[in-house]
Amino acid sequence: MAIEIERKFLINGESWRGLGKATHYRQGYIRTENHATVRVRIAGDRGYLTLKTLAPGSSGIRRREYEYPIPLEDAQEMLEYLCDRPQIDKIRHTLTWGGMVWEIDEFAGDNQGLILAEVELTDANQEIELPEWVGEEVSEDYRYFNSYLANHPYSQWQH
Amino acid sequence: MAIEIERKFLINGESWRGLGKATHYRQGYIRTENHATVRVRIAGDRGYLTLKTLAPGSSGIRRREYEYPIPLEDAQEMLEYLCDRPQIDKIRHTLTWGGMVWEIDEFAGDNQGLILAEVELTDANQEIELPEWVGEEVSEDYRYFNSYLANHPYSQWQH
Repeated sequence: MAIEIERKFLINGESWRGLGKATHYRQGYIRTENHATVRVRIAGDRGYLTLKTLAPGSSGIRRREYEYPIPLEDAQEMLEYLCDRPQIDKIRHTLTWGGMVWEIDEFAGDNQGLILAEVELTDANQEIELPEWVGEEVSEDYRYFNSYLANHPYSQWQH
Repeated sequence: MAIEIERKFLINGESWRGLGKATHYRQGYIRTENHATVRVRIAGDRGYLTLKTLAPGSSGIRRREYEYPIPLEDAQEMLEYLCDRPQIDKIRHTLTWGGMVWEIDEFAGDNQGLILAEVELTDANQEIELPEWVGEEVSEDYRYFNSYLANHPYSQWQH
């Protein structure tokens, strides 16, 4: 088990483009009746099964996470037969900036138009330098959780 | 992925006792909003994460199943923090009878008093010899699914 601590931002402009390594992500969720998130992900040609929860007594940026690699074929079948729809389709651009690894998710499909930048911290109070291409912080805004976006695509938001 | 095909029976009498190897099972479920079952199991000192669904167009005895071994510590934490309550606590007695592997689950806790025998088939139409200690078949009765028993313990049924 890992505790995932991450901050999430909207993106400003286009100056981040071309800086990162791009990988195609597809992911789906099985909606649960409690606070747990069950996610199936295909990242490039690798499959993963992930369970997440809000860590007890913590804010939205700190989550208990259990992730396991699974056979790609299993992940494909689970997206087809077990996961809810719609699903998340995005290009993840991974780059190092200011000594930190940033992930910029450029959404496609029903979430087209949305681009989010995430950085993973080792401590919730860790100070980080913000690149010029990050905008408003949305770490605590549940609408930007991928699990929320799967059920409430960005294209259907009231902009 | 495996297709799980199993038949399930109530137990008659006590003549099965002492025939099998006993292992303690604890398992919990994360209730989902669709047809998928998400199960965390500790069998002896081993942890497993399992997703199951009804196979398309099939009856209750044939299920699509994805099972992965996970670290025991992860399974313990998931039962504690992610899974719903109550949870399943049982002794599984595994034995070979008539060339088939039978599993006899003797439930404890809220399901005390219930004993079920299961046999896994390679084909839904496979003919099997039934031991004298099996009673009524309950393969198609959803009440005997462990995922149902977790939420509706046997001790609360109208007997």
